[in-house]
Amino acid sequence: MHLGIDIGGTKTDAVVVDADGTLRGRRTLPSGRGADAVVAAALDAAWGASAAAGAAPSDLTVGIGTPGAICDGVVSHALNLDVERLDLAGGFAAAFGVRPAVDNDVNVAALGAYTLLGGTGSMGYLNLGTGLAAGLVLDGRLWRGARGAAGEIGQICIDPNGPVGTDGLPGGLETYASGSGLMLQWGVEGSTGADVVAAAAAGDPRAVEIRDRAFYGLATAVRILVVTLDVDEVVVAGGMTKWGDELFDGASRILEGWAATSPFLRSLNLSSRMRPLNLEVPVAAIGAAMLGGGRG
Amino acid sequence: MHLGIDIGGTKTDAVVVDADGTLRGRRTLPSGRGADAVVAAALDAAWGASAAAGAAPSDLTVGIGTPGAICDGVVSHALNLDVERLDLAGGFAAAFGVRPAVDNDVNVAALGAYTLLGGTGSMGYLNLGTGLAAGLVLDGRLWRGARGAAGEIGQICIDPNGPVGTDGLPGGLETYASGSGLMLQWGVEGSTGADVVAAAAAGDPRAVEIRDRAFYGLATAVRILVVTLDVDEVVVAGGMTKWGDELFDGASRILEGWAATSPFLRSLNLSSRMRPLNLEVPVAAIGAAMLGGGRG
Repeated sequence: MHLGIDIGGTKTDAVVVDADGTLRGRRTLPSGRGADAVVAAALDAAWGASAAAGAAPSDLTVGIGTPGAICDGVVSHALNLDVERLDLAGGFAAAFGVRPAVDNDVNVAALGAYTLLGGTGSMGYLNLGTGLAAGLVLDGRLWRGARGAAGEIGQICIDPNGPVGTDGLPGGLETYASGSGLMLQWGVEGSTGADVVAAAAAGDPRAVEIRDRAFYGLATAVRILVVTLDVDEVVVAGGMTKWGDELFDGASRILEGWAATSPFLRSLNLSSRMRPLNLEVPVAAIGAAMLGGGRG
Repeated sequence: MHLGIDIGGTKTDAVVVDADGTLRGRRTLPSGRGADAVVAAALDAAWGASAAAGAAPSDLTVGIGTPGAICDGVVSHALNLDVERLDLAGGFAAAFGVRPAVDNDVNVAALGAYTLLGGTGSMGYLNLGTGLAAGLVLDGRLWRGARGAAGEIGQICIDPNGPVGTDGLPGGLETYASGSGLMLQWGVEGSTGADVVAAAAAGDPRAVEIRDRAFYGLATAVRILVVTLDVDEVVVAGGMTKWGDELFDGASRILEGWAATSPFLRSLNLSSRMRPLNLEVPVAAIGAAMLGGGRG
């Protein structure tokens, strides 16, 4: 059986699935802060899920998804876990007895979504969360790039006169369509993306501008992924998608406007290749389990 | 041995290489116009190169690179060959006796460059020709996408207030850094890209603006390919690269400016991952031979 652990900014979610992908056990706990607590929470969740599945560690493969940059099981710069550097694979294996495969959270979620949606070809998994990044599944396998930086499309400039991001550069896609980007543009301490959406609905002109940029950013992300990689579909997930139909309808209108003008973009059917991820299952944890099982 | 044919807008170039990639024969002829003449020129070049190599058709695998959209050996919309639709694989095989593998010109050139440069990981092959497109070699194999449209990054909008392209949409990357894009912006009948470069050198302010957009376009193409795919390097080729150092220096200055501001972009070493293709060999024809030999 396969144990998968999704370490998020707020919770650590562990699942055990069998060879058919059927869920056999699950345990969800608050995430730790700092290197030691992050490992401790992952271990507690892992033991809990294993016990629920009636599986001993020696029966399991293990995969873990985590924020941050990953190299050989070592996590760096996972700022929302207060982790500067952590040998996650080593620390976990020392206590659990099985060395986990470790990858970043967007990649394992991409793998989970691809598997759960019955994917057969290629998929761009667009995560609109605190940040904006994509997981790329090409011919059924994750494409990570030369240094594990593939999918960082949030760092593409889509307007040299656009809003300046936290990195000091203008027009980054992440500033248009992510939680942190909306907050940066709105600039009101303690507010959330939902506040901006509500202000736009109430007619606040600055909020309307930020909202319309989010539609444009999502549409542009879909266009970038399809014209660059010609993925079968772009699955859109992450906290910002709780916004719901208004976001997808707004982006679709822009995609359809482009298609009405450009024969090439029309031939790509961009609008019909954008797909909200609507799954009531722990996609990232299941993806982590797939990763540990040798998929991806 | 492997026969490769590169059908270009002006010439058709056939080579025969052996298993080591050593050139054994070559024949270059003017390309035909229209479906029948295109096939006839390809056959004449093929027979010429085979004879020069002392090889019979039955000793050869065959690969062909051509402009246009390719599906199962059928070429569509190869406008600069006056071809609307052509069963190139079928027509060639009927006379030559060997069915060729057929792919688009940018893809076979990417494969040739990757092989000749001794590539081991991944490469974006950025063609700045009449149009702008990329060939993607990932883990040593061409990535073509779901419908063969991968690499069409010329169709990404990099500035919603940028110059309007032939498709009616603003700011397309192709308009910034391709022969057709420069001509479209310059708007002087019968002029060439070299005329714009000369006018910019003479201080014409509109030419300077177009030149600077070309630098920005090349830098942006490199940034898009690296942040999206994290390819080991971006090899830049195509007619526009005859412009030489001024083009690459101009793009490098922009890439280095971004790196000075953004820690993430700095960590990617964009400037050092951009590489002009400086090879005095028929890259596309050799790539076509590799394709026919089962590479890519």
